[in-house]
Amino acid sequence: MNAPVLDFWFDFASTYSYPSAMRLRALAEETGVAVNFRPFLLGPIFAAQGWNTSPFNIYPAKGRNMWRDLERICADLALPFLRPNPFPQNSLLAARVALVGLNASWGEEFCVEVFRTQFGEGRRIDDAAPVAQILTRLDIAAEPVLAAAQSDDNKARLRAQTEDALRRGVFGAPTFTTADGELFWGNDRLERALLWATQNR
Amino acid sequence: MNAPVLDFWFDFASTYSYPSAMRLRALAEETGVAVNFRPFLLGPIFAAQGWNTSPFNIYPAKGRNMWRDLERICADLALPFLRPNPFPQNSLLAARVALVGLNASWGEEFCVEVFRTQFGEGRRIDDAAPVAQILTRLDIAAEPVLAAAQSDDNKARLRAQTEDALRRGVFGAPTFTTADGELFWGNDRLERALLWATQNR
Repeated sequence: MNAPVLDFWFDFASTYSYPSAMRLRALAEETGVAVNFRPFLLGPIFAAQGWNTSPFNIYPAKGRNMWRDLERICADLALPFLRPNPFPQNSLLAARVALVGLNASWGEEFCVEVFRTQFGEGRRIDDAAPVAQILTRLDIAAEPVLAAAQSDDNKARLRAQTEDALRRGVFGAPTFTTADGELFWGNDRLERALLWATQNR
Repeated sequence: MNAPVLDFWFDFASTYSYPSAMRLRALAEETGVAVNFRPFLLGPIFAAQGWNTSPFNIYPAKGRNMWRDLERICADLALPFLRPNPFPQNSLLAARVALVGLNASWGEEFCVEVFRTQFGEGRRIDDAAPVAQILTRLDIAAEPVLAAAQSDDNKARLRAQTEDALRRGVFGAPTFTTADGELFWGNDRLERALLWATQNR
């Protein structure tokens, strides 16, 4: 019998991916599930639905609820919360850097730190300077990593990952997918997805 | 100190309102919260967002996920589940009848039975015949109730209820609102909303 596996699909600009990223590794350890961090870009997926920004901006009542809801969720989890401005942040460079890190040893730490910086401290993550600062905080030399992130190969890897997300039916973030093809959408479904992974490996 | 109160806003066509309607009264009793069933119409609220049908039909990937997710939720709760056709069902008459019933003694039973019929048995609830059948199953004389439901006064009450929902920021269903103005959207938030109601009365 294989070890249970769960893929964690997220865009760094995704608000509800923040509590998932902060909770995921501890819950995965508790339940014995191996988790793959899979950053992708929501932009092309939203564009295919006719949206040019976050649906939380397009539908204001939904957006107001999301910010209040996220505030309550973070308070319940004792997570810091501060709304970044602008929203959504451009997540392209951070996602490219994350792919470099996930091929090395520091990818998950980087992802968690990007989310914490953005939604815990309300700081920008949308440019080379803030991304380099995060790398520096993690004791990683920023310059070679940023160069690797912007290589043609790495850009193509992020495009392929986004296409893979689309193929699996991903339409938002966070999304969790299992080895047998089950898809769970939303931070609210993390526990159920982990249970599914352990019961249907 | 007042007894805690929670308003339960729903449209009969709303899929995720089904598990909420089936769970709500037992959970409310457990937590000592008084619940008001408040049927309204999502149609005018969706129309204001530029939608002429359910967003689950407009965005197919989201719709596919919703049906599968609802199937899993119902299995976890041991609730029967069968998808109605067409979806969404026209919920206008059922909502008008529910208002009549909620002014009498049988409103909540009627609401639960409409949801069970529609999403537990996959049957239509969108016309006088199926609504009359539900009333008959509940031992209520259908004819005078249908007449009362279609009175000008009652039609105006449903419009006023929908306007009240909009004023409170309701944009989807199920939604739960508390006496202090807190809004919780979605079946996933029912437990949190009940807790809020008990802690902030």
